[in-house]
Amino acid sequence: METPIILSKYRQAIADEMRSQLEPCISPLYAMLRYHLGWEDAHGNRIETPSGKALRPALCLMACEALSGGFERALPAAAAVELLHNFSLIHDDVQDDDRERRGRPTVWALWGKPQAINAGTAMRILAGMSIQRMAERGANPELVLRLQCLLDETTLLLLEGQYLDIYFESCQRVGLDEYLRMIERKTVALIACSLELGGMIASDDPCVLATLRRCGEQLGFAFQVQDDLLGIWGDERLTGKPVGADIRRKKKSFPIVLAWEQAGEADRQELASIYSQPEVSESDLGRVMEILDHAGSRRRGRTLVQGYSAQAVVDFESLGPPAWAHAAFRELVTFLTERDH
Amino acid sequence: METPIILSKYRQAIADEMRSQLEPCISPLYAMLRYHLGWEDAHGNRIETPSGKALRPALCLMACEALSGGFERALPAAAAVELLHNFSLIHDDVQDDDRERRGRPTVWALWGKPQAINAGTAMRILAGMSIQRMAERGANPELVLRLQCLLDETTLLLLEGQYLDIYFESCQRVGLDEYLRMIERKTVALIACSLELGGMIASDDPCVLATLRRCGEQLGFAFQVQDDLLGIWGDERLTGKPVGADIRRKKKSFPIVLAWEQAGEADRQELASIYSQPEVSESDLGRVMEILDHAGSRRRGRTLVQGYSAQAVVDFESLGPPAWAHAAFRELVTFLTERDH
Repeated sequence: METPIILSKYRQAIADEMRSQLEPCISPLYAMLRYHLGWEDAHGNRIETPSGKALRPALCLMACEALSGGFERALPAAAAVELLHNFSLIHDDVQDDDRERRGRPTVWALWGKPQAINAGTAMRILAGMSIQRMAERGANPELVLRLQCLLDETTLLLLEGQYLDIYFESCQRVGLDEYLRMIERKTVALIACSLELGGMIASDDPCVLATLRRCGEQLGFAFQVQDDLLGIWGDERLTGKPVGADIRRKKKSFPIVLAWEQAGEADRQELASIYSQPEVSESDLGRVMEILDHAGSRRRGRTLVQGYSAQAVVDFESLGPPAWAHAAFRELVTFLTERDH
Repeated sequence: METPIILSKYRQAIADEMRSQLEPCISPLYAMLRYHLGWEDAHGNRIETPSGKALRPALCLMACEALSGGFERALPAAAAVELLHNFSLIHDDVQDDDRERRGRPTVWALWGKPQAINAGTAMRILAGMSIQRMAERGANPELVLRLQCLLDETTLLLLEGQYLDIYFESCQRVGLDEYLRMIERKTVALIACSLELGGMIASDDPCVLATLRRCGEQLGFAFQVQDDLLGIWGDERLTGKPVGADIRRKKKSFPIVLAWEQAGEADRQELASIYSQPEVSESDLGRVMEILDHAGSRRRGRTLVQGYSAQAVVDFESLGPPAWAHAAFRELVTFLTERDH
């Protein structure tokens, strides 16, 4: 599947904005940040690595451009959401004990957990400072404060979601409503925030902003449920993770949460027994996959993803965006929800 | 030594400001924050524990009141510096593996390190949001942005200082200039920021603000060097730490850094040999104390503390504060630099 035009269109401008903020930082603290972003190797030498999708900043810029005809003013906000996302990745890797991300050692695997905690927090502070740069470039101070307020509220939601995700590890069973509350904070909030920030820079119509936010929420739910489906049925060669990876890690992801709700009594008891073991064996993995099949987790997940993404498209189109934005948003939604890695 | 009037005068107003922000937060994430602040036990029941000195918010309020005659407008900024300080304590405990603080288990000792990382970061986000509350109460948006900018820059300095402090653990020897650069970021920056924030709310005279900042820097250096002296020669019954605690932990604190600079060749070689052992034995501890004596670390440390604090008083008085503020600042400086715990 080809990269949607909207992701490639803004890529360079986003990278330039972030680099202009981060490259002048001289304390060795910031070398960890540039390493994490794929700009430098562990010794501070410049490298070229394939960067992430930069989905969130692209959403921010597209919302601004679709509503006002230009995206440049929104660049600091776009950089802010990308920095915020990367703060959460650095701390996530520490919290989950993950030694690798995108085929490279994580920050803590190289510098140790104490320093990676500093690196992640610094990334979040730089996100707020990126928004501040709008004021230096002449933006209305009241608007800048409103943007910062949304960035702060979104960060707290992210942390609340991360709290729940970690807490769920110690729960044998998590209900569908609890799962949805968790992803609403951990993933959905930032995707919605990205569209809303871009919108706020272009418009102060509260109806437009509420619609953009709802559109972002639908897209966020679609994105996360799809991610959860790939965490179990994703193609190992594309995702880099073995089939059933999230089952081995006993993650309370969508398919397993749904199976707990939908499965018959016998299947539930078997799930309970398998999940109470310290490790999930190869044969147990096969049994869990069968139980997920019985419960229709994959099919129901796909239906949910399609429902959320259709609603996101309806919301976006209700704003009457120009034709290019209309087409670009549809292409992006299809890319995110049909993706295989 | 009695608590200085300036610390008791503002205590209730600071606590009320912080509580009004934190008590309505309902996610279990925030229970960790209220626990850390000493307001609740681990089960969320209200308790009364002796709180910390609340030095930083008191400095902020006093600067504002001394310059403008009132302190209420500065309460959100005062709460912000206290929240920022507490963010750094929560992460510090995780990074240093400390299981106890002020006689209670640390956040990570109760909830685990992954959740304590979330708690600390949330505390820092709330610090920024506290400043935002000034805008809701009618403060000039441009002023609020300038305050936030200083809070962000100070947080980055804190993180740079924490980076160096952790990095120094792996160095056998740290120079006096490196040590000063570290504490300038880790401790001094926030004390200077506290005075400056309060000053900015009362005045926009750049000379006044520069003097306040320098005054805070002198006070910060005095405070940290005194802290380092207590970390070795502090009274065990008062500090709660055994004599020589920082030597056992091989901390690169002022007395040892000075000894490396001042000691003769034989003493230096002995220090090198003791510090290259995995543990500092009881007899080695005695030898290090002797080497510190030869190098005059304690005496030179006291001279430095007195010099810094005298300069802080001169700077403060050069602002021509009212008589009460003048007296209160002198009393505070004496308290902080003559303290025995």
